Amino acid sequence: MKQYVVGVDVGGTNIKLGVVGPSGLVLVRNSFATKPFASSRIKLISALAHEIEASIISAGLTKKQIVGVGIGLPGLVDYEKGVVRFLPNIPGWSNVHLKSILQNKIKLSVFVDNDVKIITLAESTFGAGRGVKNLICMTLGTGVGAGLILNGQLYRGEDNAAGELGHMPLNEHGPKCNCGGYGCFERYVGNRALLDLSSRVMGIPMTTEAIFALAKKGNKKALFFWKTAAEHIGNGLVGIVNLLNPRLIIIGGGVSHNEKFLFKTVTDTIRRRAMSLQGSAFKIKRAKFKDDAGIIGAYVLVTNAQR
Amino acid sequence: MKQYVVGVDVGGTNIKLGVVGPSGLVLVRNSFATKPFASSRIKLISALAHEIEASIISAGLTKKQIVGVGIGLPGLVDYEKGVVRFLPNIPGWSNVHLKSILQNKIKLSVFVDNDVKIITLAESTFGAGRGVKNLICMTLGTGVGAGLILNGQLYRGEDNAAGELGHMPLNEHGPKCNCGGYGCFERYVGNRALLDLSSRVMGIPMTTEAIFALAKKGNKKALFFWKTAAEHIGNGLVGIVNLLNPRLIIIGGGVSHNEKFLFKTVTDTIRRRAMSLQGSAFKIKRAKFKDDAGIIGAYVLVTNAQR
Repeated sequence: MKQYVVGVDVGGTNIKLGVVGPSGLVLVRNSFATKPFASSRIKLISALAHEIEASIISAGLTKKQIVGVGIGLPGLVDYEKGVVRFLPNIPGWSNVHLKSILQNKIKLSVFVDNDVKIITLAESTFGAGRGVKNLICMTLGTGVGAGLILNGQLYRGEDNAAGELGHMPLNEHGPKCNCGGYGCFERYVGNRALLDLSSRVMGIPMTTEAIFALAKKGNKKALFFWKTAAEHIGNGLVGIVNLLNPRLIIIGGGVSHNEKFLFKTVTDTIRRRAMSLQGSAFKIKRAKFKDDAGIIGAYVLVTNAQR
Repeated sequence: MKQYVVGVDVGGTNIKLGVVGPSGLVLVRNSFATKPFASSRIKLISALAHEIEASIISAGLTKKQIVGVGIGLPGLVDYEKGVVRFLPNIPGWSNVHLKSILQNKIKLSVFVDNDVKIITLAESTFGAGRGVKNLICMTLGTGVGAGLILNGQLYRGEDNAAGELGHMPLNEHGPKCNCGGYGCFERYVGNRALLDLSSRVMGIPMTTEAIFALAKKGNKKALFFWKTAAEHIGNGLVGIVNLLNPRLIIIGGGVSHNEKFLFKTVTDTIRRRAMSLQGSAFKIKRAKFKDDAGIIGAYVLVTNAQR
């Protein structure tokens, strides 16, 4: 019986693969570095085909038991047409028909989507958002993005490009952003912005991990750093809370591990600034999945497509 | 055969009624002033019951031909429970079970909803948004609100409170808003803000109609007024364009009649500041319906509920 999915999570640094079964259970995992293949699109696709087939074998399965392959990629992906439009951190990927190329190679159904949308499917189906009809799943990292579950469905937008939370302006006349806009949320809470903030607050640039360790020891500057970052995050979420009236905001990505110094201030900031009903209706939760989010979400992507 | 709907559009100044038939055709219209009834909730409900029954008779119909009654109200309405939570401009309306009270009185099915959501249904089904899957229907007036059609459905949010576009912050540290937030969009483009802007630009406070007339004659200050207003509107829409990747933004409300001096600058501002795909994917259109929007939308509300 077909009931397994091969999930692939393509990142700028590593590519993770996993074979996932019912209830999102991960049977086998594997990962390899992106860099040796990043120079050539064809090499990368061949490596993907090889690793997908190898992972099926190492799970003790045959292709007859595989529903399909789900692939998450960090950039603009046309889910419906199966085309990778653009990947900002992996050169050479412009309008690549990944779905059809890979289907021809491996003779399995392939589905491609944006990585944040796939993580959102994982959290919504098996993770922090189970049973919630309206939620925002935000990832904080170098980039700041979000997946939206609205009326119980993943909302993709007109071109599968919805969810660019990091590029909602926080200040009309704020600093110019790479995206062409001004004062984007990401310019205040993305990793680069937090590194800048660390220089200003701590005196030298420091990783968020190091500042987290200092905050745990009660270091006042470190506590101030987290308070400032959390207030920016809260301020940036007020608009989406008033606009979308969600029940839940899931926060994932590296910084989210610092739950202790982040979530209360974020919540308080939103409650203070958002409209009263919307501001009291939402909760914040940490994402349940870390490394497996992409492959578990791929399982949901593929099995949803069978319905 | 049941195929007509009585639509009621409750405003702070007037209450409009209409009997609407297939294709959103308005058979009869009526309106009365809100003020004489605003002091008493019971009086207002009695007046509604009376006017609804009178409008059915004046359309030459009987109750057997009426699918139901749809009522739009300017405030927080719980569509599912049929309860009016709060109307900022009509005192005494706190948690009123309008649906059940009125159903008992008139023996017809009654549906209640927020007025902007109902206008959005009208535009989406019979107006500027026909056939569009993902759109934002914005009303510019004293308040600034929006209805969202996402994946082809009206998106209500967790408490039917989605769409508060006017309370998405445009500036993190902007002026305090009545809603409790700071730098809200409405503080820059609502009627009060435009009156303030007119004082600063024109030297004296002027209505938007008067400034529109001057702009048509080529008055430079008036043209500058519209350019400034349009840039604020555009800046305020960048975030929602990046977040929701809509195909269409419908603009309604008094100011929207000044299409000539508004829409091009709004569009250009968004295209310049939004991400490239999202920024090129949308169009702006003026709302099709003016006075009839509420009663035509009520027809859609009631007939959708029968499906």
